[in-house]
Amino acid sequence: MSELKVSILGCGSATPTKRHQPSSQIVSYGEKLFMVDCGEGAQGQMRRFGFKFSRLNHIFISHLHGDHCFGMLGLLSTMALHDKQNAMVVHMFQEGIDLFKPMVEYFCRDNPYPIIYEPISTKGGLVYEDKTLTIEAFPLYHRIPCVGFLFREKPKLRHMRADMAAFYNIPVRDIPSIKEGNPWVREDGTVIENRWLTTDPSPALSYAYASDTMFNPKVAEAVKDVDLLFHEATYASDNKDLARPRGHSTAEEAARIASMAGVGELVLGHFSKRYQDEELHLKEAREIFPNTILANEGMTIDVQPNPNLNPKPNSNPQG
Amino acid sequence: MSELKVSILGCGSATPTKRHQPSSQIVSYGEKLFMVDCGEGAQGQMRRFGFKFSRLNHIFISHLHGDHCFGMLGLLSTMALHDKQNAMVVHMFQEGIDLFKPMVEYFCRDNPYPIIYEPISTKGGLVYEDKTLTIEAFPLYHRIPCVGFLFREKPKLRHMRADMAAFYNIPVRDIPSIKEGNPWVREDGTVIENRWLTTDPSPALSYAYASDTMFNPKVAEAVKDVDLLFHEATYASDNKDLARPRGHSTAEEAARIASMAGVGELVLGHFSKRYQDEELHLKEAREIFPNTILANEGMTIDVQPNPNLNPKPNSNPQG
Repeated sequence: MSELKVSILGCGSATPTKRHQPSSQIVSYGEKLFMVDCGEGAQGQMRRFGFKFSRLNHIFISHLHGDHCFGMLGLLSTMALHDKQNAMVVHMFQEGIDLFKPMVEYFCRDNPYPIIYEPISTKGGLVYEDKTLTIEAFPLYHRIPCVGFLFREKPKLRHMRADMAAFYNIPVRDIPSIKEGNPWVREDGTVIENRWLTTDPSPALSYAYASDTMFNPKVAEAVKDVDLLFHEATYASDNKDLARPRGHSTAEEAARIASMAGVGELVLGHFSKRYQDEELHLKEAREIFPNTILANEGMTIDVQPNPNLNPKPNSNPQG
Repeated sequence: MSELKVSILGCGSATPTKRHQPSSQIVSYGEKLFMVDCGEGAQGQMRRFGFKFSRLNHIFISHLHGDHCFGMLGLLSTMALHDKQNAMVVHMFQEGIDLFKPMVEYFCRDNPYPIIYEPISTKGGLVYEDKTLTIEAFPLYHRIPCVGFLFREKPKLRHMRADMAAFYNIPVRDIPSIKEGNPWVREDGTVIENRWLTTDPSPALSYAYASDTMFNPKVAEAVKDVDLLFHEATYASDNKDLARPRGHSTAEEAARIASMAGVGELVLGHFSKRYQDEELHLKEAREIFPNTILANEGMTIDVQPNPNLNPKPNSNPQG
């Protein structure tokens, strides 16, 4: 089980339908939840799928179309009724902050928790960092300014081999240095190379969210080698002509981006209301990029190491 | 079948739950739809229950708590995608207009239809009138300014008796005057009293919406004799102590208002999330006002003539 997971709250496009809700996802990393986009009804979906409001402290909004942000007012209000104490950080373009802040200040004036606004540059850049994770915004190519988000685990420490620690009777105080990849020097001056003492760390996982965007090879550069890519596929090829003028992609185009970027897995979403199902999207994408799945409300994807890049996890280089 | 109907889109309170959505109703009168309150998700509920967006031209917002208005942004955006042409009139307090207008202007800037804002006075008053219907706002007693809405059909014309029209060979040009209740004068000067020529018109129906409010006899005065009353019943008597400080009512209090006002039927709604069902609300209310029902999402109520007031429809006073 991966520590980095992506849960789909909504993977429809502009109009909610009986099948799909507007855009919203929860990216969870251990105990932390991050919300990416917050279409109308996101709070209801969080509750439906059992996410705790108290664990969510960051919301990232990709762009200022209503189907990606109208759920924020309801979500922020409801959190107040769930005794949220710690701050909520809302990351969005300054233009959106200017619009939402007066509404939030009015409707959430009795909220017991602070709301902090962090402007995102339309050019992208680092938007979040902690000890184990970074989140970067990167430009997408829509009708209005839009960014995607790239979640990356920081490189992890090497695994200490318990058998070798016992064999050499390594003192506990020396272990952090060994885990960082350093050799170990015995009291008699003998140097034991790190590769005898440790195995490779689990690969640092990554997830990129790209919605909404037309086909653009720059997106492939931005998401190069990620383990999991969510890429919008508003249309299948039957509505190919609509995609570019509306700033959207077809499933085939999403698959071409995944293929060019050499990602591990592709999940398609942001489906137009005109489809009764997305089997055509899936078929077309898999012809180009076989490791493709369809998003669906309530689905959780464990991010897995990109098979194109990573040796099997926990492999022993001496093995 | 009554021409005046009330459909419940949401009858929960502040937090949406698996069972209840935030406040919203559609009052339909013939082909016209009126929305009363517009909590988050109202557009999805409209679609779910088969209401045509194109028939909705007026939204009335009772007060500025999010669970009564956050759905408006999504609804107004979606309507643009359904090729709405005619104007949408949003009726709310000026304070709400000042807040929503910049958001709507930004997010709905490409909308093909005009949006008109009509301020409602916190003191109430006439908010809508056409040939057949009036809608009045009346004050409620909540934590912040709040109004209810009273829909009244205008008095209808008397029914012309076909047998008498034939018997006297009444010219078509004289019928409108007779339907208005005037006597008919034959060419020889004989006066035929109206009561021989017509039967009573169907009673003009009325519906009052009262959410959110604490118990206050002034509400009973405002909704006196209406055919159908929706009254909030956030709590049952087990949470009686919460009602007044929070500006809400218990089911028992709602029933007392219905009884004092002599309404025809009472429908309870705006249920707190703390209840798994509302059987206790129903039991308590029916002890005071037997003709009580519980609101539920998807329910449509045909407004029926208040039995306390109206003779049976189409009765003949000569009969």
